[in-house]
Amino acid sequence: MIWLSRCRSFVLVLCFFLALMNFPAADARIRRFKWDVKYEYRSPDCVKKLVITINGQSPGPTIKAQQGDTIIVELTNNLMTENVAIHWHGIRQKGTPWFDGTEGVTQCPILPGTTFKYQFVVDRAGTYLYHAHYGMQREAGLYGSIHVSLPDGESEPFQYDYDRNIILTDWYHKSTYEQAVGLTSVPFQWVGEPQSLLIHGKGRFNCSKLITTSLDAGICNVTNPECSSPFTLTVVPGKQYRLRISSLTALSALSFQIEGHNMTIVEADGYFVEPVVVQNLFIYSGETYSVLVKADQDPSRNYWVTTSIVGRDVSRDPSNTPPGLAIWNYYPNHPRRRPSTGPPTGPAWNDTAPRKAQSKALRARKGYVHPPPPMSDRVIVFLNTQNQINERRHWSVNNVSFTLPHTPYLIALKENLTHVFDQTPPPTGYDFLNYDINIVQPNTNATLGNGIYRLDFNSTVDIILQNANTMLPNNSETHPWHLHGHDFWVLGYGDGKFDPFNDPKNYSLVDPVLKNTVPVHPYGWTALRFRADNPGAWLFHCHIESHFLMGMGVVFAEGIDKVGKLPSSIMGCGETLGRHSP
Amino acid sequence: MIWLSRCRSFVLVLCFFLALMNFPAADARIRRFKWDVKYEYRSPDCVKKLVITINGQSPGPTIKAQQGDTIIVELTNNLMTENVAIHWHGIRQKGTPWFDGTEGVTQCPILPGTTFKYQFVVDRAGTYLYHAHYGMQREAGLYGSIHVSLPDGESEPFQYDYDRNIILTDWYHKSTYEQAVGLTSVPFQWVGEPQSLLIHGKGRFNCSKLITTSLDAGICNVTNPECSSPFTLTVVPGKQYRLRISSLTALSALSFQIEGHNMTIVEADGYFVEPVVVQNLFIYSGETYSVLVKADQDPSRNYWVTTSIVGRDVSRDPSNTPPGLAIWNYYPNHPRRRPSTGPPTGPAWNDTAPRKAQSKALRARKGYVHPPPPMSDRVIVFLNTQNQINERRHWSVNNVSFTLPHTPYLIALKENLTHVFDQTPPPTGYDFLNYDINIVQPNTNATLGNGIYRLDFNSTVDIILQNANTMLPNNSETHPWHLHGHDFWVLGYGDGKFDPFNDPKNYSLVDPVLKNTVPVHPYGWTALRFRADNPGAWLFHCHIESHFLMGMGVVFAEGIDKVGKLPSSIMGCGETLGRHSP
Repeated sequence: MIWLSRCRSFVLVLCFFLALMNFPAADARIRRFKWDVKYEYRSPDCVKKLVITINGQSPGPTIKAQQGDTIIVELTNNLMTENVAIHWHGIRQKGTPWFDGTEGVTQCPILPGTTFKYQFVVDRAGTYLYHAHYGMQREAGLYGSIHVSLPDGESEPFQYDYDRNIILTDWYHKSTYEQAVGLTSVPFQWVGEPQSLLIHGKGRFNCSKLITTSLDAGICNVTNPECSSPFTLTVVPGKQYRLRISSLTALSALSFQIEGHNMTIVEADGYFVEPVVVQNLFIYSGETYSVLVKADQDPSRNYWVTTSIVGRDVSRDPSNTPPGLAIWNYYPNHPRRRPSTGPPTGPAWNDTAPRKAQSKALRARKGYVHPPPPMSDRVIVFLNTQNQINERRHWSVNNVSFTLPHTPYLIALKENLTHVFDQTPPPTGYDFLNYDINIVQPNTNATLGNGIYRLDFNSTVDIILQNANTMLPNNSETHPWHLHGHDFWVLGYGDGKFDPFNDPKNYSLVDPVLKNTVPVHPYGWTALRFRADNPGAWLFHCHIESHFLMGMGVVFAEGIDKVGKLPSSIMGCGETLGRHSP
Repeated sequence: MIWLSRCRSFVLVLCFFLALMNFPAADARIRRFKWDVKYEYRSPDCVKKLVITINGQSPGPTIKAQQGDTIIVELTNNLMTENVAIHWHGIRQKGTPWFDGTEGVTQCPILPGTTFKYQFVVDRAGTYLYHAHYGMQREAGLYGSIHVSLPDGESEPFQYDYDRNIILTDWYHKSTYEQAVGLTSVPFQWVGEPQSLLIHGKGRFNCSKLITTSLDAGICNVTNPECSSPFTLTVVPGKQYRLRISSLTALSALSFQIEGHNMTIVEADGYFVEPVVVQNLFIYSGETYSVLVKADQDPSRNYWVTTSIVGRDVSRDPSNTPPGLAIWNYYPNHPRRRPSTGPPTGPAWNDTAPRKAQSKALRARKGYVHPPPPMSDRVIVFLNTQNQINERRHWSVNNVSFTLPHTPYLIALKENLTHVFDQTPPPTGYDFLNYDINIVQPNTNATLGNGIYRLDFNSTVDIILQNANTMLPNNSETHPWHLHGHDFWVLGYGDGKFDPFNDPKNYSLVDPVLKNTVPVHPYGWTALRFRADNPGAWLFHCHIESHFLMGMGVVFAEGIDKVGKLPSSIMGCGETLGRHSP
């Protein structure tokens, strides 16, 4: 009996250690998550406001999985009166286009009180994101990371001792409702620059800029533990760190740097790239990077981690957004010990040269090159413009400003509900000969539209994103474009108007990077190529939350006849009001 | 040809005049409305905030109809990411219980982009209301009036020259989201007193209480035409006015008065009452009154119309809510000419005697008396208490705090979906012998519940609303209880604990008023009687928006087997996710 008892204890202890180790199985696994999505009061930058949390967190929990795993997220909407949908940014959803989470494109919104089950395979190792894709909810804090590790026995083509995660965001004190109503009002009310930059959900607003009265006393409180100390990265001297840095800003293009330390870019949007050493990492909303950082500086002190806005002159806005700050903390210094120096100032906001240089410097990693098809079957040019329609400000593609229908495209296409959206395809180009991209147009009119681009299945498509002057003189903005359901080869970047005869000669066809998000620089163009090999309906849009709300997006459809049976869980709105079942 | 042309002109002119006259038909008519519901920036009290409007208006358009008419409202939800539902307050929905508009009880919420058709008969002349019944949307401005006139040939038992409409509300600067999250948070964050009182959507906040910075400059602007001048009632000297006065406050009990003029109450919640002359009209959220006012004072000046909060000590709150002001303008004085006197101060907030006196003074109008059945089949006592559950503050009925299920009761009952809510009925009374209503309870625990009260069809039910001390010493609040789907006879009001042996002896059984909303006064009780003669599921709840959100309500069900076929338009949530069709 004593022996039996000892044996039992041994088994229990063994189980305990096995549980602690949590070692990966040889085969693909199912990873289940239960998420409670709700509004909570938080003070991410010391100003109290409503934040959408997942299981009490914003950023939400990081999904960690291995290539080939199946992710199941059972999301319960507890937002009270508001619906929700979540997009898995960078996950291609091969075979599960209905779980892309794009409200109006691939699914109906999830009602309050409803539990929706997302289920998809993460088929490629890398750094990805998830975030709300309904209204402007992403900006309310509903976002997080997805880290997919390589299969057993495979390793990255670089060494590191520790893996750390940082999501960069910009932060507004107005609610997403206030912002969205302002953007769609007459007169137009621009959201302006953000009040703060957050480094992994933490920032610090200068409360003296917010004079409070007895009515809102305590709304800004720098002693709140949520914001009283900055985000800290504690490092062991001499060790090598893989920092996974992502941006989910609403508006801002960012520069990110670690005082006194260089960063080596080794991964972009889930693909290994040839190492590029930078002092400033330029990162646009929707992009993910891995950089390697050696903790090789004087370890007796701490260093600043800073992020600042580039591409927009924040000093002209009442917010005058200050840089976001975090601390690179050499162990065993106190993590809150302020660096002895001032935070490094970022690059000049209007110096586009280093940003373009970084864009152009990225090459696919040797040994991991997936060359593009040498030719495309089709070229579509997307002119990016700011327009005025019925006294409202819009963004447009080829002078069509996109509006989402209330019946998701995927369902409408699969079931041939032709009355749900305009069946005429939108234009595949603009008036190339006569349009001057360098001036404010004499006629800034555009039309609203919900037509889509139908692509031949397995065809190769080139997209030329052409930037232009906005409605302000001498102004052209940076737009990060994100493609759902695919990665694309970045064939090239250029200044001015794309020349269809000469520019393709300089395309990068040997080792271009594959990405899912790419900037188009001011007054410039960006050329992409992708294979329309993923049956479904896929959004391609500017990842700036307000720009997409104002119409800056298109939808591609391909291989609809190859889309499997749609789950009824994605239905329940528009023409499918009566057709949801759990 | 000339003759033909002339004839054509004549017909056109005739049609034009007929259209202008819009004279009533002898038979019941169908009155159609198309409503666009959306968020807009408004400044009802000079502070800019998001307001939910109907066709651009808040208060929404008044529905004017004649007894027997059918109202059709096609409501399109343009709130972007938020659902909606609208309750027709005081309309009994005989035969159409599915169009009562109570989210979670009679219908699923209406999705963004969806048009929902409400269709019901207004079967009784009188003054009624409509308002959102989902989350706290009513407070965001989604409300209006329904005026139903008598059938042709019938007239009111009183004379008046003009008919005017006023809805009183209280107004918060925080969004309904902020309020609702605070109320359901740990720690509990009370909404506090309102920042303003609005008279038919207009108020005026003292902007000096809101020190603004460059970040929110212009948020309070007293020169905004929306608020720069108060609401004005222009009257012709010597004429008699019927003022329809309703309250849809979120929290506040109000006193309403017109400087120098008495008011004669002649209608309450749609029923004619014996004339009662008052200087102050006390009115609770959900009540409607008609008062007659003779424009018989010195017509060379204007007079103040004021409303102020009673029953709560606003001076202890940072808001210190000032009275709402409007102008009683004698034609032809300038409507904005300020009265030469200061606004009259309202009654003391803590003087309950005149409020109780008004409650008790109301009697059914002679010739319009509908006496109640002399006996009831069943008596249910509802103890109103404030409680603490899992660190959260709640309101309860018999120590059960009500929670709404996500499948509407009406559908669950009709289709016998017994797993949707707790099938055990909640308690029909409390520990009468041992519960001291005058003290803070040593144990303030309660339970959450979604069980309902099933009533025998056509039975007569007495409800005793019993008030008690809150969780604060020496504090008992006023609760206006509103019953959906029925009117009830008000049998009596009393102080202290209801005595089941003696108090019924004093019931008013000869000519009690019929109402749909009634206050229970501090430390007092109110006794009601109604016939359970309306097949359906009906909410009975405190009309204070935050109190209902915190659990102060119950549901009655009766004659479910007599409910007709449910329209699938009310489905699409909870267990009925897959079963909506337009």
